[in-house]
Amino acid sequence: MSNTKGYAAFNATDELKPFDFDRRELGPHDVKIEIDYCGVCHSDIHTAHNDWGMSEYPIVPGHEIVGHVTETGSEVTNVASGDLVAVGCMVDSCRECESCKNDLEQFCHKGMVMTYGSPDPVMGGVTHGGYSTQIVVNGYFVLKVSEKLDTKAVAPLLCAGITTYSPLRHWKVGKGQKVGVIGLGGLGHMGVKFAAALGAEVVMITTSPEKGNDARRLGASDVIISKDEEQMTAHAGTFDFLLNTIPVGHDVNPYMPLLKNDKTMVLVGATPVDLHSMGLIFGRKNIAGSLIGGIKETQEMLDFCAEHNIVSDIEMIELEEINTAWERVMNSDVKYRFVIDMKKFRS
Amino acid sequence: MSNTKGYAAFNATDELKPFDFDRRELGPHDVKIEIDYCGVCHSDIHTAHNDWGMSEYPIVPGHEIVGHVTETGSEVTNVASGDLVAVGCMVDSCRECESCKNDLEQFCHKGMVMTYGSPDPVMGGVTHGGYSTQIVVNGYFVLKVSEKLDTKAVAPLLCAGITTYSPLRHWKVGKGQKVGVIGLGGLGHMGVKFAAALGAEVVMITTSPEKGNDARRLGASDVIISKDEEQMTAHAGTFDFLLNTIPVGHDVNPYMPLLKNDKTMVLVGATPVDLHSMGLIFGRKNIAGSLIGGIKETQEMLDFCAEHNIVSDIEMIELEEINTAWERVMNSDVKYRFVIDMKKFRS
Repeated sequence: MSNTKGYAAFNATDELKPFDFDRRELGPHDVKIEIDYCGVCHSDIHTAHNDWGMSEYPIVPGHEIVGHVTETGSEVTNVASGDLVAVGCMVDSCRECESCKNDLEQFCHKGMVMTYGSPDPVMGGVTHGGYSTQIVVNGYFVLKVSEKLDTKAVAPLLCAGITTYSPLRHWKVGKGQKVGVIGLGGLGHMGVKFAAALGAEVVMITTSPEKGNDARRLGASDVIISKDEEQMTAHAGTFDFLLNTIPVGHDVNPYMPLLKNDKTMVLVGATPVDLHSMGLIFGRKNIAGSLIGGIKETQEMLDFCAEHNIVSDIEMIELEEINTAWERVMNSDVKYRFVIDMKKFRS
Repeated sequence: MSNTKGYAAFNATDELKPFDFDRRELGPHDVKIEIDYCGVCHSDIHTAHNDWGMSEYPIVPGHEIVGHVTETGSEVTNVASGDLVAVGCMVDSCRECESCKNDLEQFCHKGMVMTYGSPDPVMGGVTHGGYSTQIVVNGYFVLKVSEKLDTKAVAPLLCAGITTYSPLRHWKVGKGQKVGVIGLGGLGHMGVKFAAALGAEVVMITTSPEKGNDARRLGASDVIISKDEEQMTAHAGTFDFLLNTIPVGHDVNPYMPLLKNDKTMVLVGATPVDLHSMGLIFGRKNIAGSLIGGIKETQEMLDFCAEHNIVSDIEMIELEEINTAWERVMNSDVKYRFVIDMKKFRS
């Protein structure tokens, strides 16, 4: 067992506070990682606040982890000590079910073990994430990170990145296609970057006119203000794909007419939506959901980022500033992701 | 112009009453049809009652029409006098847009002309449907009907039939697949027949235990009572396709766990639904809509029915009984479709 320092939520209402705990002994398939950076995801806050009603405390949040390997178990072959690596939203799965065999560990029939807040089969209690100095993870769930990228800004790729990359790839977004990204936040800004890098014509669809310039800087060629009916009508029936990153309950009906026949809007936010089937029936349109991505695809995404020099737009914070940072995330006051400097915290 | 007798709604609240009106002169591309039978669709009632807020009166409902050709325009080549034919939900479209060119006239960019209640480009007012003695239709929208089938029971195929056949074909339902049909009414009973004829294992999913035997008679191999959580859980993750025929607002969330990863539930009812993205996100599932079918596919459906001896389960009525029949439709008290004997009305 190895002593680990971090910050934890101890209940649904209080602020995060310092928390010392033990990581498990290194098993033969395990990798020990010294955490350098950890991104701050809105899910961290939802989980700490028990918004989804499944939280067990204490919880050490954080599933956008970048660090260095410090030790490997005897059976680990994919990484070695000193390697720059990453851990995303999952740290284990059964590896035997149909989903796991199809590289969709996020849909493991026995349930994936999430990086934090999942029942911990080894240590008891729940798993603890990246708001901490180190982590011990089954090597299969450890991703390799290129040294070419700005390491700090890689962290958010592990959730915000893969969550937007995976649906763009699954629905085969690419050249010759017009793609709308709805919502410009942590996820949306990655969606714009990826869709543009994949060769699509990208349109930002937002309620906030002031986000237009930023969307264009990120790769959008056009901006639609979704409350402007004239603009929405002008683009009706022209989109090949819509990536809806809105993280809160909303009415999806106004977006459906934007799609061509037989095309799909994908929801990546976990939220109730208002839907009338009329918008699907006319034009045989689809609404789908997508959840992060499998381990193989997450590695593919990181390699794609290295090739195309894609990272997240970030603002660095220290772990001691986490409660203020969370306030700002809840107020959508970050462009576009906070990353905790765990190197500083460690030293 | 030719004098036509029928029944019409004159406003949103009163009963249907007798109505005499003129059909247009036969144009070179037109076909004149003496109507033998007309099915009674729930949409007839919605339109007459102005439930969708777009109705103009008087309206002669009816878009499940079977009859005989009595006269053809000089340019008509696909049918001839005496032929047994059918007219469904559309009587015209632009024939030039991308949807029309792709045999999806129901999504015509200029708007299809519906069989009743659409602005009538020739006669002014709105188009009049099959609760009448005769109809004049562009020959392209006239379907051929096999003499092998029970003609009376063919009528509902033109809406209830194609509405369920089209999504089953588009999503490639067939052998080796487990398909759920949600709701056993006019549409649901056709969905069960078609899915079974296509070789799928069909499961009826219903709130009404008493519908189980009937579902089995129609071709279902199993029945799930949707309010029984134990049954729903036992079938979780086993369905390749769900055809949701519920015609009124409802919560779709309980059905999503039934689907395998990446599979689709199709809505064919025009209705608001309760949806939480969680049910789509886990398993990357889809909800889609489907609207009747194009003319080419409607002919394919009628030919499929002739080949597989499929017709609707019907109860015959006279046109004078239409108001009582509508009451019963609204109470779901029909197995499974009323058909008006227009032969009797004509004579």
